[in-house]
Amino acid sequence: SVNPDLASERQTPSFSVEKLTVRLDGGAEHTRIRRAVVEAIECDPEFSRENQYFQSQNERYEAAVRKAVHLQKKMHEMGWTESGPEFKYIYRALSGDVAFLLHRIFMRSISVLGSDKQIAKWIPLATQFQLIGSYAQTELGHGTYLQGLETTAVFDITTQEFILNTPKISAMKWWPGDMGRSATHTVAFAQLYVHGKCYGVHPFIVQIRSLQDHSLCPGVTAGDIGPKMNFEHVDNGYLMLQNVRVPRENMLNKFCEVQPDGTYVRRGSQKINYFTMTTVRISLIEDEVIIPLMKACTIAIRYSVVRRQSKLKPGEQEAKILDYQTQQEKLLPPLAAAYAFHFLNDYLQELFDKGYREIQRKNFDTLPELHAFSSGFKAMVTQYCTSAVEICLRACGGHGYSLLSGLPSLYTKIVASCIYEGENTILLLQTARFLIKCFMAASAGQPVPPSVTYLAAVKPGKCPAKNKSDFLRPDIYTEAYQHMAVRLISSTAAKLQDLIQSGVKKHDAWNQCTVQLVQAAKAHCHYITVKNFAETVEKLETKAGIQKIMKHLCDLFALHGIFSNAGVFLHDGYISGAQMDMVTASYLDLLAVIRKDAVPLVDAFDFTDKSLNSALGSYDGQVYQRLYEWAQKSPTNKQTSPAYERYLKPLLHNTLSKL
Amino acid sequence: SVNPDLASERQTPSFSVEKLTVRLDGGAEHTRIRRAVVEAIECDPEFSRENQYFQSQNERYEAAVRKAVHLQKKMHEMGWTESGPEFKYIYRALSGDVAFLLHRIFMRSISVLGSDKQIAKWIPLATQFQLIGSYAQTELGHGTYLQGLETTAVFDITTQEFILNTPKISAMKWWPGDMGRSATHTVAFAQLYVHGKCYGVHPFIVQIRSLQDHSLCPGVTAGDIGPKMNFEHVDNGYLMLQNVRVPRENMLNKFCEVQPDGTYVRRGSQKINYFTMTTVRISLIEDEVIIPLMKACTIAIRYSVVRRQSKLKPGEQEAKILDYQTQQEKLLPPLAAAYAFHFLNDYLQELFDKGYREIQRKNFDTLPELHAFSSGFKAMVTQYCTSAVEICLRACGGHGYSLLSGLPSLYTKIVASCIYEGENTILLLQTARFLIKCFMAASAGQPVPPSVTYLAAVKPGKCPAKNKSDFLRPDIYTEAYQHMAVRLISSTAAKLQDLIQSGVKKHDAWNQCTVQLVQAAKAHCHYITVKNFAETVEKLETKAGIQKIMKHLCDLFALHGIFSNAGVFLHDGYISGAQMDMVTASYLDLLAVIRKDAVPLVDAFDFTDKSLNSALGSYDGQVYQRLYEWAQKSPTNKQTSPAYERYLKPLLHNTLSKL
Repeated sequence: SVNPDLASERQTPSFSVEKLTVRLDGGAEHTRIRRAVVEAIECDPEFSRENQYFQSQNERYEAAVRKAVHLQKKMHEMGWTESGPEFKYIYRALSGDVAFLLHRIFMRSISVLGSDKQIAKWIPLATQFQLIGSYAQTELGHGTYLQGLETTAVFDITTQEFILNTPKISAMKWWPGDMGRSATHTVAFAQLYVHGKCYGVHPFIVQIRSLQDHSLCPGVTAGDIGPKMNFEHVDNGYLMLQNVRVPRENMLNKFCEVQPDGTYVRRGSQKINYFTMTTVRISLIEDEVIIPLMKACTIAIRYSVVRRQSKLKPGEQEAKILDYQTQQEKLLPPLAAAYAFHFLNDYLQELFDKGYREIQRKNFDTLPELHAFSSGFKAMVTQYCTSAVEICLRACGGHGYSLLSGLPSLYTKIVASCIYEGENTILLLQTARFLIKCFMAASAGQPVPPSVTYLAAVKPGKCPAKNKSDFLRPDIYTEAYQHMAVRLISSTAAKLQDLIQSGVKKHDAWNQCTVQLVQAAKAHCHYITVKNFAETVEKLETKAGIQKIMKHLCDLFALHGIFSNAGVFLHDGYISGAQMDMVTASYLDLLAVIRKDAVPLVDAFDFTDKSLNSALGSYDGQVYQRLYEWAQKSPTNKQTSPAYERYLKPLLHNTLSKL
Repeated sequence: SVNPDLASERQTPSFSVEKLTVRLDGGAEHTRIRRAVVEAIECDPEFSRENQYFQSQNERYEAAVRKAVHLQKKMHEMGWTESGPEFKYIYRALSGDVAFLLHRIFMRSISVLGSDKQIAKWIPLATQFQLIGSYAQTELGHGTYLQGLETTAVFDITTQEFILNTPKISAMKWWPGDMGRSATHTVAFAQLYVHGKCYGVHPFIVQIRSLQDHSLCPGVTAGDIGPKMNFEHVDNGYLMLQNVRVPRENMLNKFCEVQPDGTYVRRGSQKINYFTMTTVRISLIEDEVIIPLMKACTIAIRYSVVRRQSKLKPGEQEAKILDYQTQQEKLLPPLAAAYAFHFLNDYLQELFDKGYREIQRKNFDTLPELHAFSSGFKAMVTQYCTSAVEICLRACGGHGYSLLSGLPSLYTKIVASCIYEGENTILLLQTARFLIKCFMAASAGQPVPPSVTYLAAVKPGKCPAKNKSDFLRPDIYTEAYQHMAVRLISSTAAKLQDLIQSGVKKHDAWNQCTVQLVQAAKAHCHYITVKNFAETVEKLETKAGIQKIMKHLCDLFALHGIFSNAGVFLHDGYISGAQMDMVTASYLDLLAVIRKDAVPLVDAFDFTDKSLNSALGSYDGQVYQRLYEWAQKSPTNKQTSPAYERYLKPLLHNTLSKL
């Protein structure tokens, strides 16, 4: 039975929830397939996440391996293949709680960086799990800056082998997933030396554990890096190599090869490699970032209509906490952002598919733009969603802090997305470098990529809004974002030039502008997100109330951004103080409007109770019953602690007679 | 041996580190006592936190109980008493990782709310641990709004007992520390009923477990609420009561009593009770909030001068990451905030000591101001420090994400401070209510408490700064903060009045202003913090370079606040766009200045390696060696996982022959 406080929220949605779900999935057929995959996985007890919050790191790892092995069987049974339409929903249905994800990266890197011969040898072995692969790039002392890697691979012409070494502790490979305890092989990145000359970082296939008994190979030291904030199911590992020899054929040599006599040959274009890095960043956004935010919104919003606290009006019963403006202010902008980023992701996917087709036709012109896009949006979306998940957690008060709410693990996992696949600040600076370059080109009348042509059309002017309803016009607020982005980019470009002209060295000048460059890159991404949301809404079907509610969310996303970053809009007077008051008024009005549809809007995400795995967020809203039932299953209740016999009893009994 | 990259940072500090430490402690004698306590505790292996990051919730609980019992012995041995000067350093030296903290709250509530007779009976028993107490207020369905509590206590005149019940699942007590597994007694809050009439919430001493064998008493259901984001060492519990009877004498009756015939008598002032709540909020700020931020800053800043990444200048070695402006932007404002809040805390302690003396003289006039202070500053400081600790964590990249850095547990613990002892949004609204009331009074020419007299002196005007160095004048920026606070309070008060005058009901109007009221309350607290920092700097001794570096930090704290909240300063033109550019320039200049002293500034916090318990933050900066050594101790390396035999071996061996 559904909690009546939750049921009442679903009585009169302003739109068709099912139709919105279908729109989010990209069509009814996708919805059908997704639900079938979720159903098949959730019905299978082998994939259960029921006791997840009670498990140790060892138990989590073991369960993830078990699931990964079972998944092979399941896929065979169900007729799912890696190229089939079901595949993309499997990982989501498992909530990523499965091993061998780096095995896939191992395979991808061989496919991309290996020769046809290498692909023919290794890919079938990996596909059939005759080995377990990992991907060893990051070192204890070296992350983003690949040129700094210290692991070496020296070519020994006499034996036709590479000799791999991690010469210092900081050279030790550190973090690779699946490597701490599972992997038998890895793609290790090392500085290539031939005849004493360094040729830079190259990838080598290295066996690290015996296929017979899984013992470490000679010269190999490896293990698990220990406890982390999350990812307990992954055996992130360390790896030291001492004179480990691999045959010449183990250097991945699609783009460069060491010939038997030691001649180093570079061939083909490395640009495709560069493109692979950018696609990884885009591909993680949906599963690792947007879906967790959608889950957090679902949990927090359902809880906020079930939880009652204090009285809003004297004499009435305690109010649902979602009826407080401050609670709406916490939860509805994240909800709007989840939709904004979903549509942004659609746009990015399309852009990258198009880019990929161009690249296959050997046209690399769009690469700089795609790289700038992938960097900036990865950074913006991960940062925004991480903050939003934290807001959801804190908005649920004490119960949000319980692991049983599901919110702490959503937070501790999503926060890693700000760091992995490129640390966000560094990524934003790469976007900024592209923007500055384009701005200079545009200013000089040169052509620039389509997404930044707006930089050429700098108009000073003022925002024309005359009343608060003007700020519900997408042209008005999109223009404001554009103006703000142009201003931040152009003023930072000017500062940079001024510094250089005043004699500051180029790299120092750049460093002195980086705080503002980061701000400018964010502004650009924010602008594109708002613009894309507004354009998407424009194209939605007007039936079933979907366009109308999406328009509200788009307005909210845009106005919340102006309200929260008021300084950058007010700075040059483009928006006046009086207009900012209109923005605030419209923004606060929208909160009350969207609040009415808040539950239908999260229902449309269509998460099952099992996928949320939350005592607060279930479809039926039976929060208190579930918290109590789940708590009773905790090991802290199941097993009698020795603490009583050892410590409490002697303490209490010492003087028991006196009571 | 100290890592040379860290050692070089300590060579030419601009001030005396030891003198600053003494200033932070409040005198050389305090520093001596603190170090002696820390030394005694850290030398004792019973208090070791060495394996903390590897322990399960059960192990953490047991260790906390063991430490609490051992602490009794230790205090006796060392001659430390609860009223001695050492006492306040014990909890800090243990990093709060000890049981029976709620036992102390149990005792405090009896001391404050109990009659002399009750105190005489219960306090000695509790002091000698002849019982273990807890404090059961929060319910599964009820937190901040105490009037909503559902537990009942019905007076039975025939037996002279109260009959306690938790009539619904939402009435179950939930969260009380020490209650899940340890406590024998608790102070339970329940709605008092006499002759069918409800007299509101009252406290009752209830025994929940046998003193003989620790079994649950008849009618009592209790247990542990399960895993949380942190606080694994605390057995937060649940409690259901079914017709549990306690004698009439067990209602704490200093302020109100039920007489044998059922007559309800209220006596004395309840205001002191209200004062107790406010002091708890202030007392937690140092240990639970500011010290964790100081630790996070120490870890992140030491790591940032040891970690090298990318090249700042071509041809040079990789740069220390603290040399990047963006890294300075992340870490130096939190460092400045740690100092700002330390001095704010000194100010609040003094204010509350003074208030306490007044109250002892039966003068309750300052209570509303103290309550508003405690609410607003608790909210502002916890919020700011939580964000700052998260920034420190993320600024350390992947290594910050390892539990071994110490940063994840600092974060997961400090985030709870935003929720407990009053949820921050609700607290800020209480401060806002006080501010609006004072603003109205001031506007009407009536007297207001000293801290808010500035509300009466509204001057429109403009910021007089003419160049970036003007923004290093405390009078200039303090005035800007004051202006901004007055503007936000007055404009929200005006909106509230307009709404009411236009016919909106009072409580609806209030709700419609709450987003802005929260902003206004924060602005007030921010202003007072800046003002207090500036006044403290003014009074510091000018010798030993301390005043100079503190002045830089004060400027940084103030300008960072203006830079990050530019909108509220620009809104009415008090600060112009051109002036905001000066603020930005001065702010960025300061980063480079303070960066030089960053390590000495965290060294002055004087944390031992054991108290930081961080592989990244130790005094010697041997980061990589320590990460590697600690990881090897992880249970994920110690014990062979059954995963290989069960899952991996069959998978790999299936087809081993083919390789």
